[in-house]
Amino acid sequence: MSTKPPSGTRDFLPADIKRREYVMGVVREVYERYGFEPLETPAFENIETLLGKYGEEGNKLIFKILRRGEHESSGTADLALRYDLTVPLARVVAQYQSELPKFFKRYQIQPVWRADRPAKGRFREFYQCDIDVVGTASIVVEAELIGAVSEVLTRLGFADFRVRLNHRKLLSAILGSVPVELHESALVAIDKWDKIGPAEVEQELVARGVSPHDAGRLVGFFNVADQGGPSPVPEASTADEANRSWLERLRIQFPASAGAAGELAQILRLIEGTAAAGRVYIDPSLARGLSYYTGAIMEITVPDLAGSLGGGGRYDNLIGMFLGRDIPACGFSLGLERIIFVMNERHMFPDQVAQSAVDVMVTLWAGAAATPDEAARGATGGREEALALAATLRRAGLRVDVYPEADKLGKQFKYASSRRVPFVAIVGDDERASGTVSIKNLLTGAQDTLPREAVAGHISSQRRQTPEDS
Amino acid sequence: MSTKPPSGTRDFLPADIKRREYVMGVVREVYERYGFEPLETPAFENIETLLGKYGEEGNKLIFKILRRGEHESSGTADLALRYDLTVPLARVVAQYQSELPKFFKRYQIQPVWRADRPAKGRFREFYQCDIDVVGTASIVVEAELIGAVSEVLTRLGFADFRVRLNHRKLLSAILGSVPVELHESALVAIDKWDKIGPAEVEQELVARGVSPHDAGRLVGFFNVADQGGPSPVPEASTADEANRSWLERLRIQFPASAGAAGELAQILRLIEGTAAAGRVYIDPSLARGLSYYTGAIMEITVPDLAGSLGGGGRYDNLIGMFLGRDIPACGFSLGLERIIFVMNERHMFPDQVAQSAVDVMVTLWAGAAATPDEAARGATGGREEALALAATLRRAGLRVDVYPEADKLGKQFKYASSRRVPFVAIVGDDERASGTVSIKNLLTGAQDTLPREAVAGHISSQRRQTPEDS
Repeated sequence: MSTKPPSGTRDFLPADIKRREYVMGVVREVYERYGFEPLETPAFENIETLLGKYGEEGNKLIFKILRRGEHESSGTADLALRYDLTVPLARVVAQYQSELPKFFKRYQIQPVWRADRPAKGRFREFYQCDIDVVGTASIVVEAELIGAVSEVLTRLGFADFRVRLNHRKLLSAILGSVPVELHESALVAIDKWDKIGPAEVEQELVARGVSPHDAGRLVGFFNVADQGGPSPVPEASTADEANRSWLERLRIQFPASAGAAGELAQILRLIEGTAAAGRVYIDPSLARGLSYYTGAIMEITVPDLAGSLGGGGRYDNLIGMFLGRDIPACGFSLGLERIIFVMNERHMFPDQVAQSAVDVMVTLWAGAAATPDEAARGATGGREEALALAATLRRAGLRVDVYPEADKLGKQFKYASSRRVPFVAIVGDDERASGTVSIKNLLTGAQDTLPREAVAGHISSQRRQTPEDS
Repeated sequence: MSTKPPSGTRDFLPADIKRREYVMGVVREVYERYGFEPLETPAFENIETLLGKYGEEGNKLIFKILRRGEHESSGTADLALRYDLTVPLARVVAQYQSELPKFFKRYQIQPVWRADRPAKGRFREFYQCDIDVVGTASIVVEAELIGAVSEVLTRLGFADFRVRLNHRKLLSAILGSVPVELHESALVAIDKWDKIGPAEVEQELVARGVSPHDAGRLVGFFNVADQGGPSPVPEASTADEANRSWLERLRIQFPASAGAAGELAQILRLIEGTAAAGRVYIDPSLARGLSYYTGAIMEITVPDLAGSLGGGGRYDNLIGMFLGRDIPACGFSLGLERIIFVMNERHMFPDQVAQSAVDVMVTLWAGAAATPDEAARGATGGREEALALAATLRRAGLRVDVYPEADKLGKQFKYASSRRVPFVAIVGDDERASGTVSIKNLLTGAQDTLPREAVAGHISSQRRQTPEDS
């Protein structure tokens, strides 16, 4: 029997979890500083809650759970694993209307499951870190979301990310005479600009049914690399220059959509004081596959990753789907797995994340083990001294391991060293006689003998001086 | 369409999550202080990993996931949701043998899913908080586990929990002439002692096939309330007195099991310096339903909860099941949902857990909104000042909400008050003119006008003085 985790899933060993917890800790702290509150929903939903919400392709990728008991043999499903964090949010908003604040600012960091074909960096179980504001159409929200996710990435050490910004209504204006039923398909083709370039986008537009005239016009509109967008945004121009140029061009060419362009201009002004300042680039080619967006849309990219670190936008018609009336909402989702992938590639994790999980290992006294007869009467061969010392050190806030077997001291030291534990505490024959403890610093080799009550302070102060900690 | 979460599952709104995070935070911190490291495994396993591991009853309670794609119509399952945290641990130990330390001390805090009939306090999705030590038969491990879980409960404020302690080999000796194939069934009957009392246990033993002679002998052995065990342990006697009495009785009646009794005596001595001191009671009637235990077994109870807050024991033959060789192991599982249930009933959560998630709300300037024409050119009606102030306060570590709409100030204040936000920051006409910010303390009613750079310090210092914080 295979002992691997199921295809597309991963086991996270302690070193993996430390990295994941580090990133999630930063995400959580920043989201809370922006006034968002946590929400969690069950791993599975009633199947009718999810079916039909993600298009035909999505329906196929939903993990479905077999009915149980007498119905199991029917081979039908009544539950399904969470596919994203937005549909559960919509359900929660409908269910708890009266309990939720007028402006519901929630964050949700939970796994979702999709039966995609597994590939490098594509998993069937992966975490999303979503923030959404439900209940207001104010443009302040877009700015706050962009500010929050930019702050997360900045705090994690990303210095080269860009927030691409567009507006669904501008996209519609740009598409213009392209028939409405082809809009979505045309957007998918334009979304490939970065990957396949203008010539192939034009071909693909025609292949998708766009008239050659419209296809040529669209590619002509977008093919303005000298104006700061798109693909690639010229390194030379600042975000500010590029954005001014685009805004002017949009206003001239699409005066009827001045409101949408104005919203982008307002967002740009509102984020000036936040971590997103200088990072936001208007990009009229940004389409964001999903059809439910109604206003601003955004996506975060870094140069060395195809695809995005996250994205979002305004969707004023979705959250109310279980209520039968529209509720304005805007959200952003950071992809935890991609952030971790890039951070690993770039060695961005601070040293402390890789440090030993243990501050000190207490050795077990190897002398004079209890005989079976003594053991049967409860004799422990002096082991209680090791546990009592461990209890004292733990009360002082240290993370303490106790070596569990009465092996020779050399073997116990070797184990501590292999685990990269910085300190080892010994209560041997001499120490027992004098009521002291010997502490060896495995990084420097220094050994000190101290009264028991001085041990925790000694380790804590040395721990602060150890270069590994800096 | 129902917007409730699926039967047996729950949505956790922000106030719920704060309570859950508080408990999980304490669990995690204590487990780490005891030298345990985190592990996480996927929500689902290949179905053959789980089937047959939990008995016939367990098999029925496993949530099974339908095959996908062309196989969906077959109605068969290839994956199943995690049912406990022990079988995944066994799989992980087999898969990563060479990477794991000789003594693998892992903690795992994750949900498990069981298709039990939902009832008050019984859920289909619930969290377990497991610690296990894999790779040593040392009795030090039992003591460390009992110390760790006792420390968790003590830190959470439980002052009346008891750790019931027994040994599988003593149980076998006590069962004695009861045929081996009836041992498990007899243990189930004895395990009901607390619920149904001695007379009905005796009846049930006979009903389960135990001879009347053995049934009488067993009930006679256990019916020693005056000796500190079991059901109920007399309030008058200390753990120490009760334990000494039981150990003597066991040694006299079952001399061949002196080794097992000695292990219990050693555990009692080893935990003396830990948070478990005075809390551990030998209870020869403790059976712990599961058949895989091989040594010490333990369970934690509080007077006002039927059932336990957690339990565990030594199981030296289970972890190696995927490897084909035995690996000694011992573990303990705390039930998060039951701990939270009792803490809620007893009002044990500290005040800060119920506090507002936001330190200060920045109001949005309600004056002179931009005209549509100005807005189309990016005018924000001065809203960028609110966001810039929020950015400054967030940089100082405060959790800051920005009211998103330019409502009248009174309405904005009312909202802050309804959300129990302690401070509101206002940049109105006067403040704009003088470059200041007004801060209103909604708890005291006091209002101060300060230079912008002094605002964060003002709020932080007042926040420390506010009685709500104590």
